[in-house]
Amino acid sequence: MKIADQWFRDILGLLYQRRTATRGEIIHSTGLNPACVSLTIQHLLKSGTIQCVGERRSTGGRKREVLKLNSEAGYFVVVDLEGTRVRVGLADFLGNIRYRWEEEIDLRQQYDVRRVLKGVEMIRRSLEGPARRRLIAAGVSYTGLMDQQGRVTAVNLGWKDYPLRRSIEESLAMPVFYANDGHCKILAERWGGVAENCPNCVYILAGVGIGIGCFVDGHLLEGHDGMAGELGHLTMNHSPGDRCNCGKTGCLEAIVSSPNIVRQYLELSGRPAEDPRGHPVTEVFAMAREGDSDALAVMDRAGRALGLALSHLVNILNPQLIVLGGDLIHGHDLLLSIIREELARHCAPKLADHLILRVSSLGHDGGLKGAAALAFLNSSQDRALLRRMTGPAPPEDSPGEGRTKEPLTVKLKIGGLRRKKKGLITS
Amino acid sequence: MKIADQWFRDILGLLYQRRTATRGEIIHSTGLNPACVSLTIQHLLKSGTIQCVGERRSTGGRKREVLKLNSEAGYFVVVDLEGTRVRVGLADFLGNIRYRWEEEIDLRQQYDVRRVLKGVEMIRRSLEGPARRRLIAAGVSYTGLMDQQGRVTAVNLGWKDYPLRRSIEESLAMPVFYANDGHCKILAERWGGVAENCPNCVYILAGVGIGIGCFVDGHLLEGHDGMAGELGHLTMNHSPGDRCNCGKTGCLEAIVSSPNIVRQYLELSGRPAEDPRGHPVTEVFAMAREGDSDALAVMDRAGRALGLALSHLVNILNPQLIVLGGDLIHGHDLLLSIIREELARHCAPKLADHLILRVSSLGHDGGLKGAAALAFLNSSQDRALLRRMTGPAPPEDSPGEGRTKEPLTVKLKIGGLRRKKKGLITS
Repeated sequence: MKIADQWFRDILGLLYQRRTATRGEIIHSTGLNPACVSLTIQHLLKSGTIQCVGERRSTGGRKREVLKLNSEAGYFVVVDLEGTRVRVGLADFLGNIRYRWEEEIDLRQQYDVRRVLKGVEMIRRSLEGPARRRLIAAGVSYTGLMDQQGRVTAVNLGWKDYPLRRSIEESLAMPVFYANDGHCKILAERWGGVAENCPNCVYILAGVGIGIGCFVDGHLLEGHDGMAGELGHLTMNHSPGDRCNCGKTGCLEAIVSSPNIVRQYLELSGRPAEDPRGHPVTEVFAMAREGDSDALAVMDRAGRALGLALSHLVNILNPQLIVLGGDLIHGHDLLLSIIREELARHCAPKLADHLILRVSSLGHDGGLKGAAALAFLNSSQDRALLRRMTGPAPPEDSPGEGRTKEPLTVKLKIGGLRRKKKGLITS
Repeated sequence: MKIADQWFRDILGLLYQRRTATRGEIIHSTGLNPACVSLTIQHLLKSGTIQCVGERRSTGGRKREVLKLNSEAGYFVVVDLEGTRVRVGLADFLGNIRYRWEEEIDLRQQYDVRRVLKGVEMIRRSLEGPARRRLIAAGVSYTGLMDQQGRVTAVNLGWKDYPLRRSIEESLAMPVFYANDGHCKILAERWGGVAENCPNCVYILAGVGIGIGCFVDGHLLEGHDGMAGELGHLTMNHSPGDRCNCGKTGCLEAIVSSPNIVRQYLELSGRPAEDPRGHPVTEVFAMAREGDSDALAVMDRAGRALGLALSHLVNILNPQLIVLGGDLIHGHDLLLSIIREELARHCAPKLADHLILRVSSLGHDGGLKGAAALAFLNSSQDRALLRRMTGPAPPEDSPGEGRTKEPLTVKLKIGGLRRKKKGLITS
């Protein structure tokens, strides 16, 4: 019998999310026929895509093999085009970030994406031949909005209809999957962060901009044009000064984003002419903690606006968990109680009762891990890439028996990116 | 080889949504292995669950059988507990409403659900024995909010924590599936209404209350507690008089629902003491059409509030289509242009550009058809019910060859419901 692509997808997807599973658990969770599961597992073990990592004894004493994805079965190039930094890395089959580079960017100066491509090329060249042949695809997390033609508009990267997809695909000889930073962050939180195995959860990326990523009933919310999650552009009660980068006035982002918190503080404290970009938002947080009334008023306004906008989100999506991420997590001690108060006030009856509000714990790797999840999940949906994920290692790979895939060996050199680069960090 | 439940589910689900499909189309759309599809189709044809309804010739001249669900393969009892009426009916395997009763209810008087059960019992008794054995499950569309214990709070039905699930399940000897009216309406629109095959769409039920049902990326949005879609309780800019039934002030529902449109009109025209329930909302629509400035002001406020709330929804979900339903569709000539204007003003860049706004065309059967879709889809997810949907007809059914399922014969008597009943309508 021929193994159907869907059996591979269901089993890889389950092992990716649950980390480990027995044959019985796979049958139970996927609803697949036991014979199909056995056949598929046999194939995946033989190809080195999955491994048996131990045994579990059931109450009846029967041994059950515990299965796991083989971290070395394939690699993904991952890119995080964040609002203030750019990161490039290599992720293994389990989404671990094995190598990474990063560099700061000059805000609002047009960022040249060829810098990223140089980093990717360096990773590729530095990989041993056999490992290089196991590069499956790339995942890119970007800030801003991408249109149907793959052009990105992102104020912080200085991009207006910047041909991101074309630029990357011209240079990168592998399939590339894209998602905005909010989407990538919730993918990362769900696989290894505070939202693990939570089917209804939202990640709020509150920093230079405001974006979200949502899982609803176990699915990543994408929307008709892949543009779901524009929480930052909900029109709120506003003052004339709340002008948004998008051209509208009164967007949530024009009240709650880091530069706008600084702007409001400067306005309130009588320094409206100063450039908000000259002050990090953490200065306002520090002033508020010292009891500065202007800083407290700005934080109160931001917290209430964010709380009201989140109540709209909760009324519409009914999530179990909201994860706060981005620069604003450094002010969570000032914001969370206000947000909770507004949620309780504005949510429909019962919807806020069991809602959990937490701060992200992923740190700087969130975008890269999300890009890895994106690449893994999308590759498994593509017939040709699925063949590569589930097929045997390339023949040169292990001349001995041609069955196992050896751990990654990599010779990475530092260099090639611009002066501000932070160098190579191995995990 | 044993046929896996998932193969049945995938094929039944596809035929339910697409109405007809060839074997090749099924293989393409489900991603199932061709051998599995052939085996499953063979089984379903033999059991009478599906039928071959013709042939399609491909360009190469090869004949391809066109498959369709057999409308008589199973029946569902459907109930629509709407805000102003209650409907009970019988749906066939294709979601056609074959028989229905309905009655008006006394608004805010506690509705006794045993009335519905009497109607259901009558349908059951009136069915011929073989057809009665093909009753698979029931679907119930309710207004209001259901808690985890199955208790419903619905102001118009006079219910506060009313034990709906317990009351129905005590009397009805079949599995029952529940969803609120918004969810049921979008299910109905997606299978045969204006949202057919649209994976990202929203139904706005704007009448005595405001509810929504959403499909996101092809999935019905349910949320953590099944309570997603509380658009009616988004807090809007409000006046002190905008008190909502939920206890909050300023909910969208307190501005845009039919009774509140009437209330605002009475307040503006200097008759604040009158009971809004004494006037249908269509009176206000008529006054606005005649140029009455108070009526026009109320419609303008309602349209702008609904437009702003919908812009929040669009920013979060990025739908392709919004379907307007409920009482307010009778005022769509007054509302749609205002709603469109507000959507264009408040949506994030590009999100409103290709958004389609339409008026529902389902009419009064929307709730029953939605309940039928709900029952069909949920039954196929339940192992025991799936066996009944895909198994052979009961032996007494067709003593001749035991393979086909005969069309429904039913002897329905009028009566049994209360005086206001509208009698039996056959379609």
